[in-house]
Amino acid sequence: MIPAPDAVVVREVGLRDGLQILARTVPTAHKLAWLRGAHAAGLRHFEEASFVPPRLMPQMADAAEVVAAARALPGAVVSVLVPNLRGAERALASGAHAMLMPVSASAAHSLANLKRTPDEALAELAAVAAARDRHAAETGRRMRLEVGISTAFGCTIQGRVDEAEVLRLVQAALDAGADELGLADTVGYADPEQVQRLFTRARAVAGERLAFGHFHDTRGLGVANVWAAWKAGVRGFDASLAGLGGCPHAPGASGNVATEDVAYLFASMGVPTGLDLTELLRLRGDLAHWLPGEPLHGAIARAGLPKTLAAEAVA
Amino acid sequence: MIPAPDAVVVREVGLRDGLQILARTVPTAHKLAWLRGAHAAGLRHFEEASFVPPRLMPQMADAAEVVAAARALPGAVVSVLVPNLRGAERALASGAHAMLMPVSASAAHSLANLKRTPDEALAELAAVAAARDRHAAETGRRMRLEVGISTAFGCTIQGRVDEAEVLRLVQAALDAGADELGLADTVGYADPEQVQRLFTRARAVAGERLAFGHFHDTRGLGVANVWAAWKAGVRGFDASLAGLGGCPHAPGASGNVATEDVAYLFASMGVPTGLDLTELLRLRGDLAHWLPGEPLHGAIARAGLPKTLAAEAVA
Repeated sequence: MIPAPDAVVVREVGLRDGLQILARTVPTAHKLAWLRGAHAAGLRHFEEASFVPPRLMPQMADAAEVVAAARALPGAVVSVLVPNLRGAERALASGAHAMLMPVSASAAHSLANLKRTPDEALAELAAVAAARDRHAAETGRRMRLEVGISTAFGCTIQGRVDEAEVLRLVQAALDAGADELGLADTVGYADPEQVQRLFTRARAVAGERLAFGHFHDTRGLGVANVWAAWKAGVRGFDASLAGLGGCPHAPGASGNVATEDVAYLFASMGVPTGLDLTELLRLRGDLAHWLPGEPLHGAIARAGLPKTLAAEAVA
Repeated sequence: MIPAPDAVVVREVGLRDGLQILARTVPTAHKLAWLRGAHAAGLRHFEEASFVPPRLMPQMADAAEVVAAARALPGAVVSVLVPNLRGAERALASGAHAMLMPVSASAAHSLANLKRTPDEALAELAAVAAARDRHAAETGRRMRLEVGISTAFGCTIQGRVDEAEVLRLVQAALDAGADELGLADTVGYADPEQVQRLFTRARAVAGERLAFGHFHDTRGLGVANVWAAWKAGVRGFDASLAGLGGCPHAPGASGNVATEDVAYLFASMGVPTGLDLTELLRLRGDLAHWLPGEPLHGAIARAGLPKTLAAEAVA
């Protein structure tokens, strides 16, 4: 199915961003059931896993198996997170369609999270892009390389992040070989005015290649920020079922914007996403069984669908 | 203090819209402590009470006493809800600064809630406006009459509400003598595109007299809707501490947008509200003691203030 011109892509990142923070390791069987349920609900874009060293993140030890299962779903577009060249080599071998490399706009976050300055991260990005090109020459299959500018709206360590630095990194990431970019509010600091302004400025640099918005709902502005980025022209959004994700610095706070709430936002606005809200809410119920005791977030699951929407947009 | 041109007024409606749904009757002493705490946090606009028959709503039996206490707070602007002429007469005698009369845009909601058609409600509004004018002639004090167009964005009974009907009621309410108007998403059905569009259209009819937005956060879009109305030029917003309010048709769902979350939205955007977030969160803690077992909502109370904001906008 070719999406309508104004359709929005919601990318489910729960299996990566949602799970990586959990203390428990989720069995592969549950991840695969989550994938199948998400696909049945209409999701086609998945960020599945991180190719990080399994000893650092046992949760992602089954990354290759999860990617293979996702690739088997009709129409699925499978992304994986890679922190460096070593991870990229595993990603290239995995058969995923895209790899996502984070570059922090906050120097302090970059050092804490990736043990590199932003410029060192850009150099690693160039090495990853070269590996992608070599792999394409060898296999005839060119993997998409996406860069996520993390902490683009502020940082728990450093505080404010300069917009000029974000724009510099956007241009530098393109120069280093990125195919697409996203801006990420990694810690839930963004406000909608800032989102609309910075996405508009970044799209003046990168055009349609600035394709994704990644928002956390830590402080209740996540859905407003999604709408703000949408107004700036963005048509791709990361989200996590039940708002899984959280932030180690904000106990009890929700994580990524909830997939079902983002789906509801666009459904209520009449913007096509291909998502079936009833199926998403059913899958959320499964998630509650797979993750007993884990706080699940999101508003539409508590309140139920409105009569006006149920009458026409759902089913 | 004269507000800066771009300042936003947040009106605390928890003592009316928040409490009216509760099964328990809150002691007057707690209401007065809530009022004092809200005033200490910078709130100046209050919707305090409903002048409805006490036998129908025992929660509001102390309306006159609460209004008197609120009037004693320096700078306070005190509104009360009146459903009809009889309530308006009590409101006029109470010394409140403004009375708010609801007119439902949904005929079905109007009949269920007020036992009148929208046109019958407009006739009652004209009678209330005449009583206001008589009272002004007698006392030299003209009470402000505000109309809230309820279910302006949809209705749990009737479903869709026609925008043309909302615009007709806006004009008719002005013709009947309303000084100011607000549009209310009484049941949490609005989406931000609809909010921006309908407020823009309604302000083309009523200009600055279309002054208030009243949003419920039932389905997670409340804060986005506040921002949408703000973008349409609205500078007055109803909110309830801890999102108190709820909806009898959506158990577990939050009610009004949370005062502290709305305050955070504007603080994060650098828009002055005069509100002290730390004080609001302290008061929310008191509320938890006054209403044990009552579900409190809101994101910022869970997550805490971000470092960027705490460093400059708070204190």
